[in-house]
Amino acid sequence: MMTITVDLDTRSYPIYIGSGLLGRRGLLDPHVAGRDALIVTNATVAPLYLDRLLGTIRTAGSSSRGRVESLTLPDGESHKIMATAERILDSLVAHRFGRDCVVLALGGGVVGDVTGFAAAIYQRGVDFIQVPTTLLAQVDSSVGGKTGINHPGGKNLVGAFHQPLCVVSDSDTLRSLPDRELSAGLAEVLKGALIADAPFFEWLEAHASDLLGREAAALNHAIRRSCEIKAEVVAGDERERGRRALLNLGHTFGHAIELCAGYGTWLHGEAVGAGIGMAARFSQRLGWLRAADVARINTALQALRLPTKPPAADPQAFLAAMAMDKKVLAGRMRLILLPAIGQGRVSADFNPQELQDFVRGELAA
Amino acid sequence: MMTITVDLDTRSYPIYIGSGLLGRRGLLDPHVAGRDALIVTNATVAPLYLDRLLGTIRTAGSSSRGRVESLTLPDGESHKIMATAERILDSLVAHRFGRDCVVLALGGGVVGDVTGFAAAIYQRGVDFIQVPTTLLAQVDSSVGGKTGINHPGGKNLVGAFHQPLCVVSDSDTLRSLPDRELSAGLAEVLKGALIADAPFFEWLEAHASDLLGREAAALNHAIRRSCEIKAEVVAGDERERGRRALLNLGHTFGHAIELCAGYGTWLHGEAVGAGIGMAARFSQRLGWLRAADVARINTALQALRLPTKPPAADPQAFLAAMAMDKKVLAGRMRLILLPAIGQGRVSADFNPQELQDFVRGELAA
Repeated sequence: MMTITVDLDTRSYPIYIGSGLLGRRGLLDPHVAGRDALIVTNATVAPLYLDRLLGTIRTAGSSSRGRVESLTLPDGESHKIMATAERILDSLVAHRFGRDCVVLALGGGVVGDVTGFAAAIYQRGVDFIQVPTTLLAQVDSSVGGKTGINHPGGKNLVGAFHQPLCVVSDSDTLRSLPDRELSAGLAEVLKGALIADAPFFEWLEAHASDLLGREAAALNHAIRRSCEIKAEVVAGDERERGRRALLNLGHTFGHAIELCAGYGTWLHGEAVGAGIGMAARFSQRLGWLRAADVARINTALQALRLPTKPPAADPQAFLAAMAMDKKVLAGRMRLILLPAIGQGRVSADFNPQELQDFVRGELAA
Repeated sequence: MMTITVDLDTRSYPIYIGSGLLGRRGLLDPHVAGRDALIVTNATVAPLYLDRLLGTIRTAGSSSRGRVESLTLPDGESHKIMATAERILDSLVAHRFGRDCVVLALGGGVVGDVTGFAAAIYQRGVDFIQVPTTLLAQVDSSVGGKTGINHPGGKNLVGAFHQPLCVVSDSDTLRSLPDRELSAGLAEVLKGALIADAPFFEWLEAHASDLLGREAAALNHAIRRSCEIKAEVVAGDERERGRRALLNLGHTFGHAIELCAGYGTWLHGEAVGAGIGMAARFSQRLGWLRAADVARINTALQALRLPTKPPAADPQAFLAAMAMDKKVLAGRMRLILLPAIGQGRVSADFNPQELQDFVRGELAA
């Protein structure tokens, strides 16, 4: 097992990465023993892993007198909404759990985001633990404390910053992950390499097939390095005043893709993959990135079985969706662009007309 | 104008108290000029003060390019619910306000609590300003950063800690306040005196009729001293790990009164008044407080035209409502009790059977 620490002063927490962690009693004991606990999961994950986690927690800590309950939500991005957060709140109230309870999110990014949000607002904040079971959640959404839900007007428009007590990433859970979701997770791995670590990008170029073949050593390295990059960026800028925005490479384009295609049609990671392709090409258009590097990024996306281009969409609707992105500061759109592979930069230093022409060209292609 | 500072490091903020503040441009300018702003108010307050505040903000800062919008909610505690918070979120999204907008709460405690909560979760937190127009909000709910909504299972079960940029308490707004609400606000003033300031309690005994007569000097002193007490307690314990709980004197009993009577039947401050009476009598029963001091508290409640006893209610339902209070820590109920006038103490040091007998006696009386 590897442990990475997210360094946030009094709210620092460990990320545990390894095999068989769901069954390890000692890991959760310090956080859960003697407390009331609610495990929130979804209908896809529950039959696979809920009993194992319940068993581990229930037998942990012989002196434990806390109750352990579970709540199974429907699966899918369409359920990342306020009504689902309210179901979790209703469950906590129905069990009469107090301020000292702990909430565990067992599942992918949707379960983690909506459960973390419910934990953030129940009794003005109770503890929670991330137990991510998808690659996307293990490398990205479970780390950093961003929680939230979607609004009809845009993704993640409602939420809270709420750091977990710990993150337990059991890489065994990736065995049950569909191929498409594995690739979607690799989009976030690629993103981390592109904004911060050129050698890691080269490693990804060399190990794409190992990753798609679910080779344990390759997956563990990818998860670990992604978490390290994210932890380092988040520790320096928890509330996203500056550098943390780098983690949004491909996301402003990606969010517009998701919105225009209809939430759930594209997986988030797939949209981010195409968004990374767009960010690379727009960086080239502005004279930041060389054509050879754009080609390498394109090849890497393809090797990871990710889309490189957006779907057909109305340019005006696409631009409006981009403008609703949270990175619009005082009306001015900022994008994450690439001066080089391994180096991201937050920039509003482009002509809006240039962006409009670029988007029209991309959507017409 | 008086200014009190709530000292919370990087999130410290001023409370402005005085006459005519709604019309003072210089006060809000530093916080609002050049930003998109949404004023949230209710149907009772809007006809009285919305135009004045809109006018002040719209003419503030000649270089301002922000938009100023408003949203009027229905009045009443029954609207302190998630659906109302969602209306505010919908309005912010509909206006396409970004992360850098500011939200102003113009009204009483309900408007402040639900608006502050919406501001806390919109885009994971945007700035907000409290403009309280009731005594209760001016002396209590607008100070300290607690925001939230009610749940069918209990009051304030959902919420967030979210400190305002500033609090603007224009005492002129108290001229339009109904007598019953004035008394309800004075319950929180009395609470502050009882937990922390015996001389202020004596001052209240001497000035009850001046306060009920809305004498400006008396009201301003009461607001100022209440805010000072609250600011001092909150600064020492923002997240209510310890000392801040003192501010809940009368509130565990009070919340049960509100729940058993049906939300909105009793005003919050009225329930707190009767709750203070109960806390004093339970303190006496435990041998903490002298009969003479209980009598003084009872007389003060009557002088401020507040109830001293709970309404008829089923003891089991009443105790269940108390047990759902957020101050129940790991299943153990803590109450705020009085060893003396001017001195509150958080205590779980009583026999549960003693409390049950006490509650039965109070409700039978």
